[in-house]
Amino acid sequence: MPNEPERTGKETGGVSRRGFLGLVGAGAAAAAAGGAGYGIGAARAQAASGAKTVHPFYGTHQAGITTEVQQHLYFASLDLTDSTTRDDLIELLKAWTDASARLTHGQQVTAEGAVGGGPLKPPDDTGEALGLGPAALTITFGFGPSLFTGELGKRLSIADRKPDALADLPLFAFDILEDELSGGDLCIQACAEDPQVAVHAIRNLTRLAFGKAMIRWAQLGYGKTSATSKKQATPRNLFGFKDGTANIMANETADLEAWVWTDADSQPAWFAGGTYLVVRKILMTIESWDRAQLGEQEQIIGRDKFEGAPLSGGEEFTDPDFGAVEADGAFAIPADSHVRLAHPDNNGGVRILRRGFNFVEGNNNLGQLTAGLFFIAFQKDPQQFIDVQRSLKSDALNEYIRHVGSAVFAVPPGVREGGYIGQGLFE
Amino acid sequence: MPNEPERTGKETGGVSRRGFLGLVGAGAAAAAAGGAGYGIGAARAQAASGAKTVHPFYGTHQAGITTEVQQHLYFASLDLTDSTTRDDLIELLKAWTDASARLTHGQQVTAEGAVGGGPLKPPDDTGEALGLGPAALTITFGFGPSLFTGELGKRLSIADRKPDALADLPLFAFDILEDELSGGDLCIQACAEDPQVAVHAIRNLTRLAFGKAMIRWAQLGYGKTSATSKKQATPRNLFGFKDGTANIMANETADLEAWVWTDADSQPAWFAGGTYLVVRKILMTIESWDRAQLGEQEQIIGRDKFEGAPLSGGEEFTDPDFGAVEADGAFAIPADSHVRLAHPDNNGGVRILRRGFNFVEGNNNLGQLTAGLFFIAFQKDPQQFIDVQRSLKSDALNEYIRHVGSAVFAVPPGVREGGYIGQGLFE
Repeated sequence: MPNEPERTGKETGGVSRRGFLGLVGAGAAAAAAGGAGYGIGAARAQAASGAKTVHPFYGTHQAGITTEVQQHLYFASLDLTDSTTRDDLIELLKAWTDASARLTHGQQVTAEGAVGGGPLKPPDDTGEALGLGPAALTITFGFGPSLFTGELGKRLSIADRKPDALADLPLFAFDILEDELSGGDLCIQACAEDPQVAVHAIRNLTRLAFGKAMIRWAQLGYGKTSATSKKQATPRNLFGFKDGTANIMANETADLEAWVWTDADSQPAWFAGGTYLVVRKILMTIESWDRAQLGEQEQIIGRDKFEGAPLSGGEEFTDPDFGAVEADGAFAIPADSHVRLAHPDNNGGVRILRRGFNFVEGNNNLGQLTAGLFFIAFQKDPQQFIDVQRSLKSDALNEYIRHVGSAVFAVPPGVREGGYIGQGLFE
Repeated sequence: MPNEPERTGKETGGVSRRGFLGLVGAGAAAAAAGGAGYGIGAARAQAASGAKTVHPFYGTHQAGITTEVQQHLYFASLDLTDSTTRDDLIELLKAWTDASARLTHGQQVTAEGAVGGGPLKPPDDTGEALGLGPAALTITFGFGPSLFTGELGKRLSIADRKPDALADLPLFAFDILEDELSGGDLCIQACAEDPQVAVHAIRNLTRLAFGKAMIRWAQLGYGKTSATSKKQATPRNLFGFKDGTANIMANETADLEAWVWTDADSQPAWFAGGTYLVVRKILMTIESWDRAQLGEQEQIIGRDKFEGAPLSGGEEFTDPDFGAVEADGAFAIPADSHVRLAHPDNNGGVRILRRGFNFVEGNNNLGQLTAGLFFIAFQKDPQQFIDVQRSLKSDALNEYIRHVGSAVFAVPPGVREGGYIGQGLFE
């Protein structure tokens, strides 16, 4: 019986040597228990997520994709500086790999004790996560289209290694994208059960990139809006509805192979076992929504608000009956409802793995909430997202949302101990 | 033996009738166990904070002051609209009281089941906290100086009821305050273990204020920066140092009476048992700090970074020895260190109850973190804060921080069931 990680680790102020070894033990046990089935996402501690849960960084696939969704997100998009060379980038990816392996075990970024650095140097680690534990941290890296194209792709000598489908997304109806919220050469997704642990990870990885890459935009999120395990209750978005009921679950191995992980035969060999990450910053006009009738809200979504059951009847996980009609002959699940348009049944069966988060950024000068959904989806081809998004063109929900940010990244496969993230790209 | 609230309540999707009654039972038991000692802050469930922890809204003092500090904050400052009358404000305070009592028990804002409202009306409750449980939510209300003064004070007929010491804070050295981040007629502080629960509370209380008051500014915070109980490990701020080691703790009854709760003899009678709330939005220049030497950081704070021990020696809770000198004759805890200047020993013994939170709001267009400390302090007289803040004029830390927002509010005493918050002001 492996050590089962406990839920609370904050009572201990520092990280004792004994505590640290205990965590490593738990992480290794969890990794062993997970097996090779569908990669690192499953190789996690079986206990409920909490301060001491470890998701090992090393594995077949990167963590943070099928991993049981955590409560907090810090996502950073970075651009390389004009002088960064191929060797600089490789050095950065090696440093990020080493640091990520440590951070996901609740250690500091430094290999030395405490915060490192010594009195006459800046600390190696910024210190604000000391004592907070691993907190189920996952760190997921991706490469944007701009890394491979133009002058940068030439400078890095990787122009011919670009994953085939990696390209900026087309413009969709209702897009009002802002350049400073879109794109990026690299991305880091940090998810954790403690927001300070996620922020600490991005802050320290960014420090390691000093002079080589800098943040282009970043996004804080809290409150998952999709579940990847039916052990997790389906969360609600800021419209108050359950979201992601039809998501791909971490234990649906065949669907993950079919829809999420890239194959060796359809992509450059280095990218096999990777996936494409699509992010969309979607503002919600909360106050307008809050003044819509409950019945109208439910017609727009296609589900009842309280239970999340499809309007064709049943309970939350009852399959929607898109043919069902009311006494007046109208569809029970309206033709322009979000559930109907987004459902695989109405999209040629296309599925994506959603892993988004709510965000709230205060209020504008009219007192209105600046808030919405930071949509994150993983798929083996961005075309899957494009197909789903295009099908939403007539979605009644469009009246209440605005897409303001967009990016796509190639997420390389996981890395084994001794290697570094994205290594195949440079071999 | 009262029902001990469990830590996790998210596995249940909806709120069953049975679950709801169970929570009320737990809350009542916790209230009964707390006794009258030092008010509602102590009248809490004894279990670790979590989804099912209830802090009852009703009590001698308002909750959210001595209450064991939660992990998440949503703070809103509101201004009354130009047409709001005395009766409107009383009606609003009654509606807020009723809603707060329900929300802190994990119920929806409506008195009906589910989200309320019915199909042809907007839902009474916006719904996004359904199933999330009470999550240790506290809701704390305050009245700003502008409520009592000028035309508004006359319109509300409360100009002569102003607490004596309620006035905008003086300008301090290094203040670069922004008007849109400062002041306000009313405030609501929502703290919870789940950010969505805190946001839901402010969102729904704001809806109840529609036409009467609107948000002037708001602040999201995460990660407490002070503890009010030694059962809580001293948290760290974004400089990576433990903060609030010398804070007033919830069980220090004599200090709470001496420094936090207002007396009947020094204030209008309606304000006895209240307190003054000072908030300061403090930006930190994170990147500059991160490049300072570890030794310099420790000299600036006056504590070691890893343990939080004073530089005069010992452990975290060892009293600093401000007279201790090094071999070279210099103070072990430098004369311009934050710990020395902020310590009660060097401020005529003045103490305040700190309850601040970290905030991170993404990155500016130089890639730098927009982040810092949302400082919150409670004291029986704002002069306590003023004295402490003035003593920090020569604080070496000032090089790395900027105060950009400031407000002060009179926090009325708690309310008993059947009354409404601030009722004494209108009697």
